[in-house]
Amino acid sequence: MVDMIIRGGHILTMKGNGVGYIEDGAIAIEDGKIIAVGRRGEVESKIGGAENRIYAHGKVVMPGLINAHVHTYMTIARGLCQDVPEIEWMIKTVSPLTKHLTPELAVKSSRLAVLEGVKTGTTLFSDYGPYMMEINSEVHSKMGVRALTCTPISEVKSLVGQNPYEPYQFDLELGERRIKEAIQLIEKWHNWGNGKIRCCLGPVAADMLTKETLLKVKGIAEELNLPIHFHLAQGGREAIQIKIRYNTTTVRYLESIGFLSERVIGVHCHGASDEELKIMVDKGVKMASCPTAIALIDGLISPLNQYIQLGGMACIGSDQANGNNTVNMFNEMRMAAILNKVKHKDPTVLPAWKILRLATIEGAQCIGFGDLVGSLEEGKRADIIILNLKKPNLTPVIDKPIRNITFNLVHSANGSEVETVIIDGKVIVENGVYKVISEEDIIEDAQKASDQLMDMAAEDYVKSDPLIMKYARENII
Amino acid sequence: MVDMIIRGGHILTMKGNGVGYIEDGAIAIEDGKIIAVGRRGEVESKIGGAENRIYAHGKVVMPGLINAHVHTYMTIARGLCQDVPEIEWMIKTVSPLTKHLTPELAVKSSRLAVLEGVKTGTTLFSDYGPYMMEINSEVHSKMGVRALTCTPISEVKSLVGQNPYEPYQFDLELGERRIKEAIQLIEKWHNWGNGKIRCCLGPVAADMLTKETLLKVKGIAEELNLPIHFHLAQGGREAIQIKIRYNTTTVRYLESIGFLSERVIGVHCHGASDEELKIMVDKGVKMASCPTAIALIDGLISPLNQYIQLGGMACIGSDQANGNNTVNMFNEMRMAAILNKVKHKDPTVLPAWKILRLATIEGAQCIGFGDLVGSLEEGKRADIIILNLKKPNLTPVIDKPIRNITFNLVHSANGSEVETVIIDGKVIVENGVYKVISEEDIIEDAQKASDQLMDMAAEDYVKSDPLIMKYARENII
Repeated sequence: MVDMIIRGGHILTMKGNGVGYIEDGAIAIEDGKIIAVGRRGEVESKIGGAENRIYAHGKVVMPGLINAHVHTYMTIARGLCQDVPEIEWMIKTVSPLTKHLTPELAVKSSRLAVLEGVKTGTTLFSDYGPYMMEINSEVHSKMGVRALTCTPISEVKSLVGQNPYEPYQFDLELGERRIKEAIQLIEKWHNWGNGKIRCCLGPVAADMLTKETLLKVKGIAEELNLPIHFHLAQGGREAIQIKIRYNTTTVRYLESIGFLSERVIGVHCHGASDEELKIMVDKGVKMASCPTAIALIDGLISPLNQYIQLGGMACIGSDQANGNNTVNMFNEMRMAAILNKVKHKDPTVLPAWKILRLATIEGAQCIGFGDLVGSLEEGKRADIIILNLKKPNLTPVIDKPIRNITFNLVHSANGSEVETVIIDGKVIVENGVYKVISEEDIIEDAQKASDQLMDMAAEDYVKSDPLIMKYARENII
Repeated sequence: MVDMIIRGGHILTMKGNGVGYIEDGAIAIEDGKIIAVGRRGEVESKIGGAENRIYAHGKVVMPGLINAHVHTYMTIARGLCQDVPEIEWMIKTVSPLTKHLTPELAVKSSRLAVLEGVKTGTTLFSDYGPYMMEINSEVHSKMGVRALTCTPISEVKSLVGQNPYEPYQFDLELGERRIKEAIQLIEKWHNWGNGKIRCCLGPVAADMLTKETLLKVKGIAEELNLPIHFHLAQGGREAIQIKIRYNTTTVRYLESIGFLSERVIGVHCHGASDEELKIMVDKGVKMASCPTAIALIDGLISPLNQYIQLGGMACIGSDQANGNNTVNMFNEMRMAAILNKVKHKDPTVLPAWKILRLATIEGAQCIGFGDLVGSLEEGKRADIIILNLKKPNLTPVIDKPIRNITFNLVHSANGSEVETVIIDGKVIVENGVYKVISEEDIIEDAQKASDQLMDMAAEDYVKSDPLIMKYARENII
């Protein structure tokens, strides 16, 4: 008698080189762990009965999706930071709002992001941001999702008011305080719930810390054996600062000080040249690409495919909702595929099976969860999603001349087809409904939190006068 | 006493220059026509009661979306034609399947496409393809949607076996037969149901007809006062043929023979230079851009934003499901925005309000339905969709410092938020469920039709051996 069996269904295990397809498969789960996976007959003869039986005939059963880079804390500012020039985005749309954020508002914002993500199949959130102590205790641990979290380490008080063409004023005391916070977070939360929450170090970006502090962070990561979640080669402000200070590029600077290693999860990387990408690959850096966010904020395409072609390991993330505007890995998978195809003018680039791997097993390996999740294999934790294929956009299901499920998951699904989400063996979403906390309450709370934030922040936002204020004044939006 | 009133809600009328926002609005409908639209109090005091009251408080009420270019007849081959080289797409993945299509299978395929489209908010389908006589009678008219339809006019029997580097063999008799079919369709269906179905002429592309036949088609369109739905400047095969035959480009050839006019809906246009786009704009040609399809099939981005910047009128379509892989205008709107931003490396390009207009009022104007639909105005037919904003990805709703609804509809919605679809005053989708025919039956029928098609076509597909067969052989997909 095991805890749970998922019977029938098209299983994508993500074992091996591709999607690891099993026809009419079954998965047995005990104590949150996968104890058997294979053809239905084999699994059923191996185990006895099961307390909970989930029938997945005609459905897709696959590992939960991994959002390798997300800031959940500002989702309540959704739809206020799009369609503006890159130079305005942070200073004129994001900063006037974040300035007024409180831990209480961040928690409600984060809950909304996690609700959106988990309902569309994300089981593991690599969540970067302030207030992670509160967010871990009030959001990730209570909402039943898996998370990699870190607090931002920076020695720059605020970007607002800084002239990017002069070296920033560093506040070394701030850096020390931020490192202390990071260590507190790690002490309290790392490997909580047998790995439901893990922690890492989060230096913000190469321009936001002194060389000494960057290396100190690296030392701590080595000592504690943790990844470093780091915005890397983002161009703009970062490139200007590194040029002024060290007369070189971010990647070359980081290489020269010995910062780059297989611990580093480098986020975005659209500012890196092909040669610099090669340096990163050689050092074992993992790339986290956020295709929608970088397209929407910068009008650019991250070099995800190049990185993989150079032999690098990569993963995909949604970034923040006030950039991307949505926290949905099905959207991100399709965007990663399509944007890389047009970047290379080659429709064969990043085929659907590879995209699915980036969002599951390879994502897990990149962010230090490869031992626990990312594939459906005996001994791994049971983070599993089940999609209903009897939807217009996933019909028909074809098995000859070739199987079409993989293509349809990337090029047709939008996340609304996710019926069941299981994390650590627990059913979190059932029949498309999130079960742990009332969805209505989370939505209502987020709306109220947004109302509160706007009461405080609207004046600053109006004063900063981003391009889209013009549309508002002209009554166009 | 009117037939229907929609009370409350954020109304986007699409009247004026922007989205034509009305707070807490109402719309009254009588005999399928909008008879009043405005603030709720004003509308309610103008009309008496209503037989059917729809409460839309806190929801978005907007015109139904217009899919300006779609081939509904091959949706049952979804997921078999992606990730292949452009040169393989038509010859090695599409043709081996379409070769075996029958009108009966096409009808079931088309029903699936319309179901997918209407559930995600499309009310008007500009449907291009063979078997339109059957599809109009068995699909569009029975399923209660609005459509612009045409049959393909070509003088080339089949592209398979044609050498693109030699002038095609034309079959003039075939051309005459196709024109006869087109006229029969128009006689039977044009303005059926007071404009629920309209027809136009559908010459396939500049390379597929002789000059004489193209001009004959143009003459018929003028005589009958109909649009011409036409694949234009698609590069590849078309560009090669026009170069061989006339030593020029498609746009210059068409200009020289006097084909281009404000009747022409030119689809794709990614092969046109900026100068040629200017010629098209000057002639009043309407551009239909299918962003996802061209990215997936060709790895290219259509010059939608350039066309608009040059002063041209444009609209958006999904193209066929065996290219795009999905028939969802929310996906298409987001792709149009993002792909044009990266094409110009400028995140301000095609702001959300403009994208919404392309998919509604401007789409209607482009394809000859501007008199009937596309905006919510007195006197227009009632094609209306209502979206539930109490979804994680559309939360929060903000009205100050600026309204965020327009941004969220383009950059967050995926179509699953569509709750109600009204076409010609009739509720077609209610609580997200299509009401006219059982969804399950349509899906089941499409699955069976696909099974039948694959029984016939699998051998040819395997023999043609597209790149993705390799993934199948290696058990990667």
